[in-house]
Amino acid sequence: MQTVPIYDQERIDDLLTHDLHIIQSDEVFSFSMDAVLLARFASVPKYGRVLDLCTGNGVVPLLLTTRTEAQIEGIEIQERLADMAERSVRMNGLEDRITIRLGDLRDLVGETGHGAYDAITVNPPYMPLRAGEIKLNTHQAIARHEIHCSLEEVIQASMRLLRNGGKVTMVHKPQRLGEIISLLRQYRLEPKLIRFVHPRKHMEANIVLIEALRDGKPDMRILPPLIVYQEDGQYCPEIMDIYYGSNEGTK
Amino acid sequence: MQTVPIYDQERIDDLLTHDLHIIQSDEVFSFSMDAVLLARFASVPKYGRVLDLCTGNGVVPLLLTTRTEAQIEGIEIQERLADMAERSVRMNGLEDRITIRLGDLRDLVGETGHGAYDAITVNPPYMPLRAGEIKLNTHQAIARHEIHCSLEEVIQASMRLLRNGGKVTMVHKPQRLGEIISLLRQYRLEPKLIRFVHPRKHMEANIVLIEALRDGKPDMRILPPLIVYQEDGQYCPEIMDIYYGSNEGTK
Repeated sequence: MQTVPIYDQERIDDLLTHDLHIIQSDEVFSFSMDAVLLARFASVPKYGRVLDLCTGNGVVPLLLTTRTEAQIEGIEIQERLADMAERSVRMNGLEDRITIRLGDLRDLVGETGHGAYDAITVNPPYMPLRAGEIKLNTHQAIARHEIHCSLEEVIQASMRLLRNGGKVTMVHKPQRLGEIISLLRQYRLEPKLIRFVHPRKHMEANIVLIEALRDGKPDMRILPPLIVYQEDGQYCPEIMDIYYGSNEGTK
Repeated sequence: MQTVPIYDQERIDDLLTHDLHIIQSDEVFSFSMDAVLLARFASVPKYGRVLDLCTGNGVVPLLLTTRTEAQIEGIEIQERLADMAERSVRMNGLEDRITIRLGDLRDLVGETGHGAYDAITVNPPYMPLRAGEIKLNTHQAIARHEIHCSLEEVIQASMRLLRNGGKVTMVHKPQRLGEIISLLRQYRLEPKLIRFVHPRKHMEANIVLIEALRDGKPDMRILPPLIVYQEDGQYCPEIMDIYYGSNEGTK
């Protein structure tokens, strides 16, 4: 590990695979299981250029390095989080593999041009912005609510940034799935593969993983459900494998 | 059972619940598990008016009589199938509960007016019509391919026939789910509840059940997966209950 500055209220967590570590903070940003599932589920090319939108503290780019030799970029609108991500990249000595961009995903196509990426991943803010519901101007609110970008803006940006035949993979809440599918198809990103995550086998899904193909034809596959906990309350073997295991994907 | 004419190549099958029986024919039409799942999954009001589109030999209306006191109508475009359905209704003595209409679902709103129904069920043809793929003019081809009505026409008709706040429940193939969700939302039928059916727990879904609310707000729930076969190759208890069991729904 390289030495980088660690600030107040920050800690270094072990990503439990490939000796990767990450800077986190309960007050600013710490990643969830959703991001880990996304990094395992996403279709990434062996080489090429991969972009992670709403990258937060960079957990998805860090984990993706175990699955691809591609150049990985993460873009984050919050300076505090982009700085955390950039320090984590340096701490792991991955500056030649990962670039963290501080900026607005809506403006990125102006810098990179259309179709610059082979694959995109995104763990966007889950909750729509409704006045009065949230405390503004906190790091967590921006990561969780559609303050700086709406679902439609995320999907529109993905369409513009992705080459023809490229894939975008998103993790989100099932509650929003109707909107997600409509918007993806409206922006010529055809949903091809979905996996639902259920906390237990008799419970409703609380996470959805969805992969869409730019200019693809309609033909959807629903993968076997991913059940997080066994009857005895332990993680199921597949979850253990996702956290601790190989560098294989989950498809 | 009332006595009704039974024609060549037809047989009488036991619906295994409430002493219901149905006329079937391998050459003309026989129902699948999909229709049984639809009849159990569908939201039906206790009273009111329920419509089954593409009713075939009337299996869904027959099964729905075990779950509601509503007046049930089934519409079928093929005269041969509508006649089978009508004879099955009489055979079960359910003429006062079920009406079978011979006709085109695209024209029905002209007879009933807009918003005439409280709930709609539909097990439509699953396969798009592509030239050269199928033998035309067979009963089975019409039931399976979009020869007389497209997915969009089924959904448009549902929107017109359903009252505000009414629900349409569809069974279909997951392959078409992207189109289904886009079209439902385009016609102001908001998908609210989905259940996927997997043959086994490690296999992809091969049936999807979807319920949409006319003029509903976006908010989707993904129910626990329905797994048909246990590890030992036997039907799982829930499938046994759907086939032989109570008159409860499956939600």
